[in-house]
Amino acid sequence: MPIETLGPVLIANRGEIARRIIRTVKQMGLRAIAVHSEADTGLPFVREADEAVLLGPADPAQSYLDAGKVLEAARATGAKSIHPGYGFLAENAAFARAVIDAGLVWIGPAPEAIARMGDKINARNLMEDAGVPVAAGTREPVTDLELAVKAAYEIGFPVMVKTAGGGGGIGMSVAHDEAGLVKAYEQASRAAARFAGAATGDGPVGPAILLERFIERARHVEVQILGLPDGRVVALGERDCSVQRRHQKVVEESPSPGITPELRASMLAAAVRAGETVGYLGAGTVECLVDTDRQDFVFLEMNTRLQVEHPVTELVTGLDLVALQLWVAAGESPDVRPATSGHAIEFRVYAEDPKRFFPGPGKITAWREPAGEGVRVDSGYAEGDMVTPFYDPLMAKLCVHAATRAEALDRARRAVEEFVVEGPKNNLPFCAELLDHPEFGSGDYDTGLVGRMRT
Amino acid sequence: MPIETLGPVLIANRGEIARRIIRTVKQMGLRAIAVHSEADTGLPFVREADEAVLLGPADPAQSYLDAGKVLEAARATGAKSIHPGYGFLAENAAFARAVIDAGLVWIGPAPEAIARMGDKINARNLMEDAGVPVAAGTREPVTDLELAVKAAYEIGFPVMVKTAGGGGGIGMSVAHDEAGLVKAYEQASRAAARFAGAATGDGPVGPAILLERFIERARHVEVQILGLPDGRVVALGERDCSVQRRHQKVVEESPSPGITPELRASMLAAAVRAGETVGYLGAGTVECLVDTDRQDFVFLEMNTRLQVEHPVTELVTGLDLVALQLWVAAGESPDVRPATSGHAIEFRVYAEDPKRFFPGPGKITAWREPAGEGVRVDSGYAEGDMVTPFYDPLMAKLCVHAATRAEALDRARRAVEEFVVEGPKNNLPFCAELLDHPEFGSGDYDTGLVGRMRT
Repeated sequence: MPIETLGPVLIANRGEIARRIIRTVKQMGLRAIAVHSEADTGLPFVREADEAVLLGPADPAQSYLDAGKVLEAARATGAKSIHPGYGFLAENAAFARAVIDAGLVWIGPAPEAIARMGDKINARNLMEDAGVPVAAGTREPVTDLELAVKAAYEIGFPVMVKTAGGGGGIGMSVAHDEAGLVKAYEQASRAAARFAGAATGDGPVGPAILLERFIERARHVEVQILGLPDGRVVALGERDCSVQRRHQKVVEESPSPGITPELRASMLAAAVRAGETVGYLGAGTVECLVDTDRQDFVFLEMNTRLQVEHPVTELVTGLDLVALQLWVAAGESPDVRPATSGHAIEFRVYAEDPKRFFPGPGKITAWREPAGEGVRVDSGYAEGDMVTPFYDPLMAKLCVHAATRAEALDRARRAVEEFVVEGPKNNLPFCAELLDHPEFGSGDYDTGLVGRMRT
Repeated sequence: MPIETLGPVLIANRGEIARRIIRTVKQMGLRAIAVHSEADTGLPFVREADEAVLLGPADPAQSYLDAGKVLEAARATGAKSIHPGYGFLAENAAFARAVIDAGLVWIGPAPEAIARMGDKINARNLMEDAGVPVAAGTREPVTDLELAVKAAYEIGFPVMVKTAGGGGGIGMSVAHDEAGLVKAYEQASRAAARFAGAATGDGPVGPAILLERFIERARHVEVQILGLPDGRVVALGERDCSVQRRHQKVVEESPSPGITPELRASMLAAAVRAGETVGYLGAGTVECLVDTDRQDFVFLEMNTRLQVEHPVTELVTGLDLVALQLWVAAGESPDVRPATSGHAIEFRVYAEDPKRFFPGPGKITAWREPAGEGVRVDSGYAEGDMVTPFYDPLMAKLCVHAATRAEALDRARRAVEEFVVEGPKNNLPFCAELLDHPEFGSGDYDTGLVGRMRT
């Protein structure tokens, strides 16, 4: 169907990602409709949309996570499609289904694909059956501590403990011995219960955990895939997301500086296989854990949505991933060239203290973004705005692109220095510190890097 | 010599171009020293430099054009090299010579190359001798009206009338008949006298004019060249600068949508030949006039400096032209790949009324730059700054890059809409109007386009 039938497009998200999606929607000639909470009324994404609908109070449960209110906003504005961004309702299969049932176009993969991949056990087993390497671990969720201990001894300590329905590092921890496992099990159980409360009746509930072999020197490397209506699945390069604080990504780069060309090729091929296995449609990400010493990898999880760090892929491929999502939603199979050029790095600029990474909301009294050749900033705020404590503290994504990694690092140093943020605490000093760190500079780092910087 | 020997680098310019050069200087690990007039004290380029020196009053003759003051600032700050940007002293051979004589590195071509190309008659004859096509016209300056009329009848009306030492459209006009030539001659004479006064004793003086065949449906297309110390001259694609108001460029794009692949290849080859003929070193631009109907071209002039519109070349090549200028100044011959990808367009955002293009200085009460995928803004101002009447009214350059021209136009529409400028009059409404103009949209336009939009 023609792309025009997607408009107006309602963007069911906030901040930098809402703004970024609005940009592409507008430049495709479609109307962009924002929804927002009371706390976000003054933010740029509300102002830049063609129309904005107030959902409710700041509390996400009463605004961005309230599926009913979002659908009502779509009805009231005559929206023809919904783009969920990432987080909030993006991986909620029941919401995706409700959108489709309301006669709207869901700009994302099929609800069935979301559901199958959202259940991590199911996803892992599906990948294993499709011949994608997975880590040694439990095939079924463990809901009993005694069985968990038994499984951990079978896999061998240290083990990674995960909640079955978690995401974004929620409820993940490493157990080095049995005592550690008992503690981790209790934490994971609590986190799983919290997650089930936040979701809208979707996904598993209760203390169901997964155990996996824990790789000591691991890199987190993910492959961007795009499933097209004509049945093709293409891999658009990888992103290295090994710079993590509190199990959450803070810096991402493409290409990964820590994998061999052979490993890259086999990861991309496996990601395509993973996408084909589930008949995946649209943009998705196959997350893997790379054992840096052995140069092999295992499937970690598949994210059935646009990723926070998608700009690094856009910079090295020259593609607009949001535009591609819209084309796919319209049933088109554009001719996508998966070639990449140069090196791109993204720095997440968080409102948090740069030492211990605790959120530090507040009013932005000064805000000047870097610019110029090879610099892209996706931001959600401007001078005078409040960073409130209700949402993720991500204020902006500072991205650089250059011919080589060395030049990208130089560009990043200059851009971090040029970025002025006053008011909320922010992690720009951490970004500068990271850029001067020899391990990051060499490219030979792993997911333990930030931890080592802080001990 | 090592790149470090160039630092600190003094940037003898202002506004967006000073800021853009400072960015690259800093990311190469060198100190950046700004010089500025009293009127510019509060501007971003002064703040973002590592050090800034006040030259004098707003009047360019007492600040940016005062060679002695600039050299004194270099001495006082321990600068080791000078980058002149464009305009002001950039093409002043005597200043380049003085910089070198003071023991500093001149980041630009040799003074001899500047002088040879600055004299348009000499440049034209040099090109003709090197086998580069030139327009039918006078080989020598005409200083007598009677001889001018005789030459015009020989060339055939309409003729283009130019001052011998002008630049940037100064003193250029078209004479359709003898009466028009008399008028144009008088205007050109006055302009030549003014130009001679503004320059620092360099270049020709007095009413010396050139006549050339005037092409009715012409495109202004220029080739970016880079001369390397090892003797190679590479062509880094072309820029189409046919959108002009008052003989000055306002929108530039690459590749040119109005030339055949064969014509492009022959223009690039001729530009390389032109560079080789003069033993050119560093970044330079070979400007040509393309006859759209005949698909042939003639040499117009060579600019021996960085061009305002260099970002479009950076976007399609992925190269940093300022960094390349510095490498060449340090005696290095980097391995430059001249491949281009996608389509880039630059819009000059001027403080001028969008109907008649008269400068409209004033205080900037609101300033919000567009951002996001494929958008680059090089700006010289921020909210709260004054645009004073002393200098060129260029406030910012809005550049877009996408896989195809159609997508670049969509991206430009979105970015122009997103750009908020309040206070001074500005030509963003003109940019929006141009983007909706079918002739510009088709790519089949010529230098008369803006004139047709305004009659």
